[in-house]
Amino acid sequence: MTGATVILAYSGGLDTSCILKWLLDQQYNVICVLADVGQKEDFVAAEKKALNIGANKVIVVDAKQSFVEDYIWPAIQMGLIYEERYLLGTSLARPCISVALMEVARQYDAKYLAHGATGKGNDQVRFELCAYALKPDLKIIAPWRDVEFCRRFQGRQDLIAYAQANGIEVSAKPSTPWSTDANILHISYESGVLEDPNTVAPASLYEMTVDPLVQAPRQPVRVVIHFEHGLPTIVEDLSGKRDYRTPLEMLKFLNDVGGSYGIGRIDIVENRYVGLKSRGVYETPGGTILYTAHQDLEVFALDREVLRTKQVLRDRMTDYVYNGFWFSPEAIYAQRCIELAEQKVNGQVTIELAPGYCRAIARKASEAGGSLYNEQLVSMDVHGGYVPQDAGGFIAINAVRIREHVRAFGPYEVAKQTK
Amino acid sequence: MTGATVILAYSGGLDTSCILKWLLDQQYNVICVLADVGQKEDFVAAEKKALNIGANKVIVVDAKQSFVEDYIWPAIQMGLIYEERYLLGTSLARPCISVALMEVARQYDAKYLAHGATGKGNDQVRFELCAYALKPDLKIIAPWRDVEFCRRFQGRQDLIAYAQANGIEVSAKPSTPWSTDANILHISYESGVLEDPNTVAPASLYEMTVDPLVQAPRQPVRVVIHFEHGLPTIVEDLSGKRDYRTPLEMLKFLNDVGGSYGIGRIDIVENRYVGLKSRGVYETPGGTILYTAHQDLEVFALDREVLRTKQVLRDRMTDYVYNGFWFSPEAIYAQRCIELAEQKVNGQVTIELAPGYCRAIARKASEAGGSLYNEQLVSMDVHGGYVPQDAGGFIAINAVRIREHVRAFGPYEVAKQTK
Amino acid sequence: MTGATVILAYSGGLDTSCILKWLLDQQYNVICVLADVGQKEDFVAAEKKALNIGANKVIVVDAKQSFVEDYIWPAIQMGLIYEERYLLGTSLARPCISVALMEVARQYDAKYLAHGATGKGNDQVRFELCAYALKPDLKIIAPWRDVEFCRRFQGRQDLIAYAQANGIEVSAKPSTPWSTDANILHISYESGVLEDPNTVAPASLYEMTVDPLVQAPRQPVRVVIHFEHGLPTIVEDLSGKRDYRTPLEMLKFLNDVGGSYGIGRIDIVENRYVGLKSRGVYETPGGTILYTAHQDLEVFALDREVLRTKQVLRDRMTDYVYNGFWFSPEAIYAQRCIELAEQKVNGQVTIELAPGYCRAIARKASEAGGSLYNEQLVSMDVHGGYVPQDAGGFIAINAVRIREHVRAFGPYEVAKQTK
Amino acid sequence: MTGATVILAYSGGLDTSCILKWLLDQQYNVICVLADVGQKEDFVAAEKKALNIGANKVIVVDAKQSFVEDYIWPAIQMGLIYEERYLLGTSLARPCISVALMEVARQYDAKYLAHGATGKGNDQVRFELCAYALKPDLKIIAPWRDVEFCRRFQGRQDLIAYAQANGIEVSAKPSTPWSTDANILHISYESGVLEDPNTVAPASLYEMTVDPLVQAPRQPVRVVIHFEHGLPTIVEDLSGKRDYRTPLEMLKFLNDVGGSYGIGRIDIVENRYVGLKSRGVYETPGGTILYTAHQDLEVFALDREVLRTKQVLRDRMTDYVYNGFWFSPEAIYAQRCIELAEQKVNGQVTIELAPGYCRAIARKASEAGGSLYNEQLVSMDVHGGYVPQDAGGFIAINAVRIREHVRAFGPYEVAKQTK
Repeated sequence: MTGATVILAYSGGLDTSCILKWLLDQQYNVICVLADVGQKEDFVAAEKKALNIGANKVIVVDAKQSFVEDYIWPAIQMGLIYEERYLLGTSLARPCISVALMEVARQYDAKYLAHGATGKGNDQVRFELCAYALKPDLKIIAPWRDVEFCRRFQGRQDLIAYAQANGIEVSAKPSTPWSTDANILHISYESGVLEDPNTVAPASLYEMTVDPLVQAPRQPVRVVIHFEHGLPTIVEDLSGKRDYRTPLEMLKFLNDVGGSYGIGRIDIVENRYVGLKSRGVYETPGGTILYTAHQDLEVFALDREVLRTKQVLRDRMTDYVYNGFWFSPEAIYAQRCIELAEQKVNGQVTIELAPGYCRAIARKASEAGGSLYNEQLVSMDVHGGYVPQDAGGFIAINAVRIREHVRAFGPYEVAKQTK
Repeated sequence: MTGATVILAYSGGLDTSCILKWLLDQQYNVICVLADVGQKEDFVAAEKKALNIGANKVIVVDAKQSFVEDYIWPAIQMGLIYEERYLLGTSLARPCISVALMEVARQYDAKYLAHGATGKGNDQVRFELCAYALKPDLKIIAPWRDVEFCRRFQGRQDLIAYAQANGIEVSAKPSTPWSTDANILHISYESGVLEDPNTVAPASLYEMTVDPLVQAPRQPVRVVIHFEHGLPTIVEDLSGKRDYRTPLEMLKFLNDVGGSYGIGRIDIVENRYVGLKSRGVYETPGGTILYTAHQDLEVFALDREVLRTKQVLRDRMTDYVYNGFWFSPEAIYAQRCIELAEQKVNGQVTIELAPGYCRAIARKASEAGGSLYNEQLVSMDVHGGYVPQDAGGFIAINAVRIREHVRAFGPYEVAKQTK
Repeated sequence: MTGATVILAYSGGLDTSCILKWLLDQQYNVICVLADVGQKEDFVAAEKKALNIGANKVIVVDAKQSFVEDYIWPAIQMGLIYEERYLLGTSLARPCISVALMEVARQYDAKYLAHGATGKGNDQVRFELCAYALKPDLKIIAPWRDVEFCRRFQGRQDLIAYAQANGIEVSAKPSTPWSTDANILHISYESGVLEDPNTVAPASLYEMTVDPLVQAPRQPVRVVIHFEHGLPTIVEDLSGKRDYRTPLEMLKFLNDVGGSYGIGRIDIVENRYVGLKSRGVYETPGGTILYTAHQDLEVFALDREVLRTKQVLRDRMTDYVYNGFWFSPEAIYAQRCIELAEQKVNGQVTIELAPGYCRAIARKASEAGGSLYNEQLVSMDVHGGYVPQDAGGFIAINAVRIREHVRAFGPYEVAKQTK
Repeated sequence: MTGATVILAYSGGLDTSCILKWLLDQQYNVICVLADVGQKEDFVAAEKKALNIGANKVIVVDAKQSFVEDYIWPAIQMGLIYEERYLLGTSLARPCISVALMEVARQYDAKYLAHGATGKGNDQVRFELCAYALKPDLKIIAPWRDVEFCRRFQGRQDLIAYAQANGIEVSAKPSTPWSTDANILHISYESGVLEDPNTVAPASLYEMTVDPLVQAPRQPVRVVIHFEHGLPTIVEDLSGKRDYRTPLEMLKFLNDVGGSYGIGRIDIVENRYVGLKSRGVYETPGGTILYTAHQDLEVFALDREVLRTKQVLRDRMTDYVYNGFWFSPEAIYAQRCIELAEQKVNGQVTIELAPGYCRAIARKASEAGGSLYNEQLVSMDVHGGYVPQDAGGFIAINAVRIREHVRAFGPYEVAKQTK
């Protein structure tokens, strides 16, 4: 493969640094790509490190704006949440990063893509499905699935030895006993000490959020989030009297304030696409606030039956995204359908941020559009066009099947109240 | 209707007291039934009040144990949550109360059932569908849908006047400017000042939970909840070193401790079955803790695809219960199916209670049964029987459709990263 | 109600003729509307009859083209089929007829709508939901739900007596012992002798199709049906060498040829929206051919997972349409979503028509668009870019969950083969 | 691998004969297993052939009864049909055959399983997932995915040459230009000339059914099929006056009579699990009759909403079975749930068999159980406990959302009737 060009999804860490060296050893021409999706990373240092190891080229792509606008915002609009708790912080970043990798691959006419994702995880699937979708002729190099590579590097110690032998800088300070993935939406923690799902995650683990009971302000604060077509358009900081109006600014602000309140921590066991169950700890401060607000407005704004159908589509889309199918016929289709429903999700929600949690406390429709919430209709005091007498017939007809069941098969079984 | 016997679902409040008198005026023989589902109510006083008005009989049914064991526990087992937030506190109580009413109706051979539910709400549907299911020959009297009654009582003032004219005791202290429904699972608040969904609910409204930021302890506390077949079996209070082992005790304890932390408040707009949107505020301290624990264990315990199917059934069941179809062919069927899945939900979850929220922080399978969580399989450090090389083929075959779509219809549309 | 204008959905039959007279008796100003949706009806005679009875006005609306283009074609595009067998011939006509009624109501500023649908059926729901959707201020007069009317007319004899007493022409020949509903898509038969679901429908019942085993040609014939975006665009009659290119012509031709082969008869028990089960016999010759062709092309053209999602939407839409919710938020939403999927359903299908049935025997994509069917990819003889080795990994990873289940819970139960 | 024992799923054909020899060349100890699932096969000749080639052992397993009782009957009970047309004849046989293979593997302590399924098909997935489920330690040998094997045998000619060189009997008569899979439920045809989906399958292809228009009787015949819990229990042959009461007899009889009428032919393009679309022709005479009868009875017998839920489960189960997941947590769960629903599917259906098709023409509930079909309730002539007046309220309340949508967002878009 002498001279064949590989695009390496490079992070600056031990794994991908060793992979870089290993690829170079095999005579590949390696272009390292670092996608900036908002992770706290010294990109200059990482670039320098890669060049020191011998990378033929290092390219840092600022994908933050695209990540927020083209992946996170649609995810909020669609209401995506995996297994009812995980806001897909990593899953959403993968297609965004893949687009950056593919653009470089196309520019440099690369034949290979290499990544440091493990063979047991979701990320290999996500990166590679995206690659197959966007540049089907690209060949994948997944060292952690390469028999030879795996034999050589059986554990972290082997990597460290290889790094030291090859003059690759190895962090002096001991790495955390877990692995993390960070971006502007979230930080995830897994593996290591977290693999025992019954061990409580150490308090020191969290990076994006403070301990809500120790460091957060004791006074709650309120923000108002405006949506158009289900997409956040303005975040009003009622305390600071400032508005944020670009997706990137909105998310940064909500991460800051949400993080300062310790909002958005979850500790879950989830089902990976490759068939394993894994334990993950996540912190998603801004995303949690946005999700909460959108959910509130959506039920407020959408017709009940449209909402039911939309949620079926949402549940499917969530699995598509988690499993790596962002670029797939089914995901494109589901997204278009959900966008149709969201045309009517227009308005604003007031969210109260408190230490450790947030909740919706008020909402209203935007002045421009209409609203299905009808104060007169629901009022106890006025009719609002509703004829209470109709409800009797409504109930009686709905009871037809219920009564027929008794007629045909006998009485419903009823739990005795005196036990 | 002289002498015909009516069972009146009596609450002791102004509405049902006036309805009682109105029924008596029409020569009905009225038996008032008060079902004790855990609401804070002076049943003795209510009984006395009804007898003073002229009720032919007053029966107080202690349905608390049945409510917890036959309705709340199954709801926890099934993971029911309406529109992703409401834990169905009122919806679940209705069939339980209906069973009490039907038992009395059967005992006294009553021909009529009267209730004070309004014509715009869900409760009329729930009570009456249950009645049709359990005693199809019973006739319903729903005064708030009766044209004559509605003409006579056009507002609260008319009720008060009628009460005073008839010697019915009217509470001196002004009633709250909203209506409530309380039982051992929750208290709900709606109507009145809450009808404007953009008005923040007053802090003084909450009765079951303290203000988490003002009155709750600042130190979190942990409880461990054990489940068998998805049903809570033991609650361990790690602080108090006590265990609770009956459903009623468990729920009471969790209500107490959850309430003391201000856990389980929500403020939502929901879709009523009769087609309206209404705003409700709910507090469900113990139920929120149980729901959180069960959800955590369920994803941990169930096979991914079984979980997906179970959640489809859960979503259907939730709507059945909210809409009043507890006793219906479809609800019975869905419940049986979900119970089958829950056979494998065995284990324990550690929940951290903090001011205003709770979250799962650790979980493990019960020693007796097996566990799909496989620490070796998921470990970064050992293979556990997993062959990483297989993942490449897994991804490639999954990519077939994705690539075919490109071949047939051209490249996927990709958002530009430089804008 | 002297002088108030009623729009009467008039059919010319005994029921609506009596209703017309009954409305006139009550001093209404009655405008009869006959919507021509393709039923074999002597509209001139019906008009004359209505005027003889005293109708203030009779309006015949030719809704055939709209029925085919705006209701039947979309139903074919969406693949609607109720409970897997009924092609919704009546359900689709109702909103079309309602639009005609509402246009007249608007033109003549009518305050009332009257119809002859019974109180146990679906049609009352369909007509009235459409009316509420399209002209919410219109009041409904449903004589067959009117206590007074029902008391007066307790059976067919009462209607005949009333008709004779009022000089309304009553058909001399005995009516069929069942009721029918006919339009250009189908004829339905129900009630009377058909009410016993175990009685075979008489051979003489069918009007739109010949007895396939007695009167149909013995030689099969082929037609080729072209679709764009899931909508039929050309029907090629291979025997006659003619093409049909407007929806109305296509459907008429397919009805003729399909009818001559006795295609499209079904005999079913179905679930009505009001909670009853009823038995119906239907003949839908052209619709059956179109449905068959569309179904074939759709599976051929759509990505598997898009198809799965589309079918979920289709199932929901089918119930909406059957239940009368054509004009509803959910139906509009579902239709838009399905249309999105159908963008890729382009091509042609060859259908063989034989006595009593038809089936797809060949199909291809349109030249213009792409095709997901890939002869090279599926070929036994060439690779077509598929790497068979990948399948091993695909299977192994899919087996992870299956094996984990054995590890956790023991072997799968297997039926013994020697019994 | 000298001496390691391989279980070979042997068919007697060219492919598996060459694979047998190839395995022997590699020093495996090969036990050929022929599972008799009802295919027309000379098992004695096949056994002799295998022994001639050098098989260490040949075992013929009679799996017919198990296939019918444990796979086909449940599939009929569940109503399984893939992509609405394919009755899963091959998919159902695979787990049955796998059980036979695993039993032999266990008996002879084999370490390997070899099969002749191709790398592009579904059968490899089905066989191997079953093997992973039933004997997770078994290693798979899939020659058609083996790089070395595939290089050596690039086409049929290479196999023939190898066979002739090794004294393997090669059929003199030219094989059909397509491949088939046969068992007691169906015969499938694919590949070869069928790969062009627009080429009509030759009339000579069909083996299990006669040409309905040429060879079938012109007189229709009727059978009555009885079901208990959704399972066929008796088939009455009304012409022959005979009853069939074991699953095997029932299916054989229905295959015979159905085949003699040319019933159960389909020509489809389907979506394979590995991501391809393929064209298949199937004939399933008895299965088609059973499916038709069961479907009719199921809609007749089940509550509407139970049916809706059951069909969701059915659709999922169908995909599980087609994809090879018969032995999986999700399939076991879905099957249990569907069985619960089927408890109420008791009764009999009269099916008319005509040349090329069959259809239900009458049905009734079994005397023992109850029936949700209520002739009085649905009758036009009697009330049956139904109060028509209730329907008005039912409709009005259902219209609330429909009207609210107009209020909020303006009138529904309506197609103009004059174009």
